[in-house]
Amino acid sequence: MPANSWTRHHILSLADFTNCEYDTVLRTAASFQEVLSRRTKKVPTLQGQVVANLFFEPSTRTRSSFELAAKRLSADTLNFTSATSSITKGETILDTAKTYLAMGTDIMVIRHREAGVPSAIASEMDRLGVKVSVLNAGDGQHEHPSQALLDLFTLCTLLDPAHPRLELLKDKKIAIVGDILHSRVARSNIWSLTATGAEVHLAAPPTLLPKLFADYGKNRPGKLFLHWQLEPALENADFVMTLRLQKERMSANLLPSGREYHRLFGITRSRLQRLCKPHVKVLHPGPVNRGVEISSDLMDDPEFSLIQTQVTSGVAVRMALLYLIGSGKTA
Amino acid sequence: MPANSWTRHHILSLADFTNCEYDTVLRTAASFQEVLSRRTKKVPTLQGQVVANLFFEPSTRTRSSFELAAKRLSADTLNFTSATSSITKGETILDTAKTYLAMGTDIMVIRHREAGVPSAIASEMDRLGVKVSVLNAGDGQHEHPSQALLDLFTLCTLLDPAHPRLELLKDKKIAIVGDILHSRVARSNIWSLTATGAEVHLAAPPTLLPKLFADYGKNRPGKLFLHWQLEPALENADFVMTLRLQKERMSANLLPSGREYHRLFGITRSRLQRLCKPHVKVLHPGPVNRGVEISSDLMDDPEFSLIQTQVTSGVAVRMALLYLIGSGKTA
Amino acid sequence: MPANSWTRHHILSLADFTNCEYDTVLRTAASFQEVLSRRTKKVPTLQGQVVANLFFEPSTRTRSSFELAAKRLSADTLNFTSATSSITKGETILDTAKTYLAMGTDIMVIRHREAGVPSAIASEMDRLGVKVSVLNAGDGQHEHPSQALLDLFTLCTLLDPAHPRLELLKDKKIAIVGDILHSRVARSNIWSLTATGAEVHLAAPPTLLPKLFADYGKNRPGKLFLHWQLEPALENADFVMTLRLQKERMSANLLPSGREYHRLFGITRSRLQRLCKPHVKVLHPGPVNRGVEISSDLMDDPEFSLIQTQVTSGVAVRMALLYLIGSGKTA
Repeated sequence: MPANSWTRHHILSLADFTNCEYDTVLRTAASFQEVLSRRTKKVPTLQGQVVANLFFEPSTRTRSSFELAAKRLSADTLNFTSATSSITKGETILDTAKTYLAMGTDIMVIRHREAGVPSAIASEMDRLGVKVSVLNAGDGQHEHPSQALLDLFTLCTLLDPAHPRLELLKDKKIAIVGDILHSRVARSNIWSLTATGAEVHLAAPPTLLPKLFADYGKNRPGKLFLHWQLEPALENADFVMTLRLQKERMSANLLPSGREYHRLFGITRSRLQRLCKPHVKVLHPGPVNRGVEISSDLMDDPEFSLIQTQVTSGVAVRMALLYLIGSGKTA
Repeated sequence: MPANSWTRHHILSLADFTNCEYDTVLRTAASFQEVLSRRTKKVPTLQGQVVANLFFEPSTRTRSSFELAAKRLSADTLNFTSATSSITKGETILDTAKTYLAMGTDIMVIRHREAGVPSAIASEMDRLGVKVSVLNAGDGQHEHPSQALLDLFTLCTLLDPAHPRLELLKDKKIAIVGDILHSRVARSNIWSLTATGAEVHLAAPPTLLPKLFADYGKNRPGKLFLHWQLEPALENADFVMTLRLQKERMSANLLPSGREYHRLFGITRSRLQRLCKPHVKVLHPGPVNRGVEISSDLMDDPEFSLIQTQVTSGVAVRMALLYLIGSGKTA
Repeated sequence: MPANSWTRHHILSLADFTNCEYDTVLRTAASFQEVLSRRTKKVPTLQGQVVANLFFEPSTRTRSSFELAAKRLSADTLNFTSATSSITKGETILDTAKTYLAMGTDIMVIRHREAGVPSAIASEMDRLGVKVSVLNAGDGQHEHPSQALLDLFTLCTLLDPAHPRLELLKDKKIAIVGDILHSRVARSNIWSLTATGAEVHLAAPPTLLPKLFADYGKNRPGKLFLHWQLEPALENADFVMTLRLQKERMSANLLPSGREYHRLFGITRSRLQRLCKPHVKVLHPGPVNRGVEISSDLMDDPEFSLIQTQVTSGVAVRMALLYLIGSGKTA
């Protein structure tokens, strides 16, 4: 495994990821993808290590994906969800993390409703001089690095399954459509996609895409464009990334209704065929509100939809991330 | 293991189970029962495979039994319960299943409040051309195949521990007592027991046993009888299967009170001794409402009660089922 | 491993623990502590055995600690919490335990809101003549043996890391401060610490420390003292054990407010430096109400606080307990 050059100890944000790091993640994930195609889909890499999933915000798919990735690396896993936690007993989040540290956790996978929590825990771990690694599994509206990396892996393996690499996306046109303002997935994807040299086009209603998002594109290899209508973002697009609409926000009048949203920004087969490149593909981090972000039939159409591939990529990419930050301890 | 002849890919219903299939399950479960008597109760059969327990309806014993069966076959397990799910986020059940499929699940064990959900998921998996197997762990009032198979195994191993087989129950009289109308356990048991050539006697208050249940006995090797009183069902019975009474239904006036039910249909030592064969045994799928379906002392009397044996059988039978549907992938 | 002399089958209370038993636990835990310092922190000791965590009262740290201890001994684990249980369906706690027994559980780790539940289950298991062991993980206000044993291990390893043993605490002064009346941790610690020959000083407001606690000190090697003020307990103390204050009890006016409690009984750096021995250390079973039982800065000060060490000790001590009661079955 090509991990010798890996030095990053925590994975908290993609804002400062180097191209070399992206390529190492892609290459390592590809090698694990190969492991997953074997009959026995396990490797002993992290045997005897403990991966604790500390999910202060509930999640099905991300938690299961990390849990499975850890088990396939032969790690022991501990699951913590706030429903059964000491948080209600007055313990701070940092105290909870320190407790799992003291039990012998090697890697903490942390999700929290508030931006910055995984970073704060990582800083405290570094201050304490301990070896534990922190992996941000989604913090508020800040970042969701493993989601963006699995999206990147999904796109790159589509273009070259054996050798996924950043340069494959150079000059591709990629649209990101939806509630960009509130999306940690969008922020992480903007970092990774503008690193590739792609043209990244954001499209959303004005309330969900403030002009200051243009700042994300400054001094990046790729170019970033903002649109308050769908059409210009889709025109000649190679890939369309859709984002989940939080229904809670609709009821608070921050969003139009699901039906209205779908009329203006919903991705349908006819829109793709009319506007995009012929072999355009659609992504969504899930869970999808069928008929809102994407029309229901398009979502299930393997000619256009990469949604299932994203989930599969997720296990391989998370194995790669756990391996890369965990290998310093095992190698 | 005698699995060479096994071709069934999903286990959804016992309605079309063949006698050969019943006997293969019984024989395979007996061999795992032997494994469970060893000091190290594990076999490497399903190493590297993933068994996902998708429980859209909460359950303690069935989920733990499947989880333990999977672990003893060395599979990795993922637990999903609707309390921590994306269902509330607007994702469909099918989308959840597809997500677990995409992660690399080999066998899905599915429980749902509504009849037909496991079958619908299995059909979709077949339509997609994927290898994943679906095991129905209880769907609404439809079926609960693994419960009926463990009941069958419990009865047959009692009669011949080394060679449990269907023909052992030929001409036995078996009573099924309780809320038959609403019971998926009863329906699955009617299929399996009428396959054996046994006489199956259903007994319940008229509101809980409509006449159309007689149709289940048509063209079956065994005979099916309906009774709206307890006594004729118990007379000369070899085995008495009791069913759980849902207290929610009592409050809705669909059932008499627990006390009234017990007076009319409750199984007590004196009733067994007065009416049944001398060595009669009582079964219950659990959890029992003590003093309602069965008198509390009878439940704890190993001379009459097979309830603990049923739980033990459950692990061996579920190991057999996971092995049989999983072995096509490993062999 | 020095387990040949171990005969205790259940661990329910420390009231009748012998000095030989304490020393065996300390010695065994020290050997597992060594295992935990290796790169691969697992041993195959309990492979193929099943440890079921039956938590009828929610807990994060204790459940995770037992789960990790079991996994590091290579046992399979099952987690049961009352939220997803049959208890609501009318099943008794004993029926739940018997179900897990029948599934093949080897060791049951039981926590319950009511005192005596683990003992009642253990008695029933013995009456049934089965080999399953019961480990009390906290029962009401009665006992929490594994917590007191990890506290003991923490103190003894501080004094002699290689050879922790009971006699190291002889003539030490140990203060236990807080809501002693309602604390199972306090009761178990009183048993273990008075076994060592230490001077044990209890300090609490009068409502939380009835005089009858003096009875715990009768006929014990160590001496037990009661104080209704903090100062005399802290004077020349070698160790200060603090207890968690249940905020629920404050609102019921059984306790003063958190602020008032902290003023009278809170442990601060200045109080320690003014009153205790120079190298005094502070313990707390967690989770801590920062600024109530202990000042926030003191809690994080490794010069004084043993709180993280306690958590680490917890895994080693629980491995030792599971090993000692489980080894009869594997050896």
